Amino acid sequence: MEQVINFINSNKESYIEELKEFLRIQSISADPNKKPEMQRASEFLMSKLSDMGFDNIKILNPDEGNPIIYGEKIVDTKKPTILFYGHYDVQPVDPIDLWHSPPFEPEIRDGKIWARGATDDKGQLFTHFKAVEAYIKTENELPVNIKFIIEGEEEVGSPSLPKTIEANKNLLKCDAVVVSDTSMYDEKTPSITYGLRGLAYFQIEITGPNRDLHSGTFGGAVMNPIQALCDLLSKMKDKNGKITIPHFYDDVLPLTKKERENYLKLKFNEKAYMRELGVKELFGEKGFTTLERTWARPTLEINGIWGGYTGAGAKTVLPSKAYAKISMRLVPNQTPKKVEKLLADYLKRNVAKSVTYKLETLHGGEPAITPIDNVAIQTAAVAMKKAFGKEPVFIREGGSIPVVVDFGRKLKAPVVLMGFGLHSENLHSPNEHFDLDNFHRGIICSAYYMNEFSKIK
Amino acid sequence: MEQVINFINSNKESYIEELKEFLRIQSISADPNKKPEMQRASEFLMSKLSDMGFDNIKILNPDEGNPIIYGEKIVDTKKPTILFYGHYDVQPVDPIDLWHSPPFEPEIRDGKIWARGATDDKGQLFTHFKAVEAYIKTENELPVNIKFIIEGEEEVGSPSLPKTIEANKNLLKCDAVVVSDTSMYDEKTPSITYGLRGLAYFQIEITGPNRDLHSGTFGGAVMNPIQALCDLLSKMKDKNGKITIPHFYDDVLPLTKKERENYLKLKFNEKAYMRELGVKELFGEKGFTTLERTWARPTLEINGIWGGYTGAGAKTVLPSKAYAKISMRLVPNQTPKKVEKLLADYLKRNVAKSVTYKLETLHGGEPAITPIDNVAIQTAAVAMKKAFGKEPVFIREGGSIPVVVDFGRKLKAPVVLMGFGLHSENLHSPNEHFDLDNFHRGIICSAYYMNEFSKIK
Repeated sequence: MEQVINFINSNKESYIEELKEFLRIQSISADPNKKPEMQRASEFLMSKLSDMGFDNIKILNPDEGNPIIYGEKIVDTKKPTILFYGHYDVQPVDPIDLWHSPPFEPEIRDGKIWARGATDDKGQLFTHFKAVEAYIKTENELPVNIKFIIEGEEEVGSPSLPKTIEANKNLLKCDAVVVSDTSMYDEKTPSITYGLRGLAYFQIEITGPNRDLHSGTFGGAVMNPIQALCDLLSKMKDKNGKITIPHFYDDVLPLTKKERENYLKLKFNEKAYMRELGVKELFGEKGFTTLERTWARPTLEINGIWGGYTGAGAKTVLPSKAYAKISMRLVPNQTPKKVEKLLADYLKRNVAKSVTYKLETLHGGEPAITPIDNVAIQTAAVAMKKAFGKEPVFIREGGSIPVVVDFGRKLKAPVVLMGFGLHSENLHSPNEHFDLDNFHRGIICSAYYMNEFSKIK
Repeated sequence: MEQVINFINSNKESYIEELKEFLRIQSISADPNKKPEMQRASEFLMSKLSDMGFDNIKILNPDEGNPIIYGEKIVDTKKPTILFYGHYDVQPVDPIDLWHSPPFEPEIRDGKIWARGATDDKGQLFTHFKAVEAYIKTENELPVNIKFIIEGEEEVGSPSLPKTIEANKNLLKCDAVVVSDTSMYDEKTPSITYGLRGLAYFQIEITGPNRDLHSGTFGGAVMNPIQALCDLLSKMKDKNGKITIPHFYDDVLPLTKKERENYLKLKFNEKAYMRELGVKELFGEKGFTTLERTWARPTLEINGIWGGYTGAGAKTVLPSKAYAKISMRLVPNQTPKKVEKLLADYLKRNVAKSVTYKLETLHGGEPAITPIDNVAIQTAAVAMKKAFGKEPVFIREGGSIPVVVDFGRKLKAPVVLMGFGLHSENLHSPNEHFDLDNFHRGIICSAYYMNEFSKIK
């Protein structure tokens, strides 16, 4: 291992130059004019795999979407297999005039590399390429079997990936999926994300009278659909922030004592959080801390509401219809399907009798968790400690990363979210950057991970 | 009187021809291109006044707005004075392709005259012109003093009228203001409208976090402003449809026993009403009938609501802001000013502490009532019975007619709403029309009113 680490340390500068080359490719998946750039980015990675002597390099979805590329190095079928996932596509660059240096002309300033895709996800993904290469160049052979799957549509919702995983279950078979596309808890703290919330997103339409009415002539005689909607939405949460839909919490996996202790140790700064959000008070489910509320407890948010007159001035209308978009963030072991049924039952019993309603499901995603004591997670902790010189923390994320669930379910493998990014690195905003120390430590961490993971079987 | 009525009866057809001439003028006040037509309409009426030998004919607002025309015939300063109000402007005609005959080419079909302005308000206003004329032509002298004030901006909110009344209080001095710009209870029932609701219209803005947040990352940690808004709006009405704002009902003039009896006698058809509105159930303040709820009880309606994502599909946003437009319909003796204060106090105590709010007053109007036993109303009842051969009913309207309040307050005179229109006559919609029998009876009614009113002093 010492040789591998030495090799990585002595190539630090050349890795940055190589990353720059990757970052110059304008692989914006949302922009249809960038198709040739998507091609270039995928070819860049395939040639890297080829240079490292990988086998079976191919595009898994030749017929549709941006190339999902695959490559493998099977050293011994008896050895454990790691599947690295990443994406080569990036977010759009607007508003372009807010960038301090052009988004596709990478610059080094203040120990960071500035470019679109630096942290999300080209820089993070590249750590594994360089770790694999360093291993091969020094030890001649990898300690485990390695597979790469890299897509070019993550920023547009990964439309091709789930079916590609489904169609290639055997090819992708592995003992752990490693994803470096998340952030560290803070800049000083190496972190392993072991849980993500799921999502159940709905639209509710309430209909009162069959047309918009004059609120003078009819006001007071019929149920106003906006009123019925507000009554309904208000009733869904009690004053303690608990969701009142019966059986909503039935399947919620409780936080363990260990998890709650871990979160407390993070010394989350509520004052700074409130200041940053500009609120005088926080509000959430009683009995839980902010980290618990956003990471490990389900919630219900009203994402949008509309009805009646919304222009300037006064219009005396009693509208025919009112709408809301609401979504629940789910935690293990809730499912969007069950929550949908609970909500449908709830509406049946609670919408005012004097109106009608329609419930539409817009989106759903399963929550995910890899238990902390899973060997793939514990191995990551060892590797992180070695690379960062510090015990990592075990965190969750409040949002959803649908592909993580797909990998976990379809491949029946633990998913390790080993993120080297920072929340402050402007992913999805102008002036995206990636800390070069974390880039370097990420490469070392990936090397240690392969080494440690070789011992599990 | 017999002579007057006979004269009216024998001139029935020529009145229709004259009305057609008035209806051909395209006096759409909302359309700036129709300025010359506004001029034509006002000149048409001024020449009619002149033909009848009226004095002091003039434009009261020469410097701004469409002409508010005035004319008077003072027969004896000791005799009572009636001030007739009406408007010569009409609504726009869109959508034009839904009209069965051109809006400004009046046609007679099925005993009705079809044209824009037929019922609102040219036809109704014209009844008083023809009654006055019939009196003068047969009796040589009017039984009372008559003043006319006719504006051309009613359909755009009467911007010039209130100050014109204020500036001409002495000129307009009278013992009753008669307005024929309302509808009959139904096609068989002559009606006197003696009460109108007022209005207090507000906009509420709720602010949560200082920017839109990702509902995955932050959902569960901060109060969602849409949630806070729904909670607030839901709480403002209880399950019995009562408004919960403290002291809201303090100034409400209770319905008298007599009024409630009168309304019951109207045998309001709730089934037909529900069918017409397409609702399965009605909803309103417990303990009151639908007519009482819409005519004589205050109400609170949410006229509009918006916040967060309202486009197609799912966007996982926890918004920074949410808005609602709400309005209260007021009844005597409530005032918009007091209600605004009550609402402000209510918000202070009831908006969630974890958000901030802003209350904006958009519009206000006083309610109005002329007691049924007022002599001006009772005289109208006698005239209506003579003209329609049937006892009139005493009704109120749920909406507001601001000018009515202005006349009542500024001139300190009872206002009589003697409407000859029908709700079904498509005022403000394509295919506006006016029943010719009601036009004819309206002229007779106006003549009887003058005759009866001459006896009051």
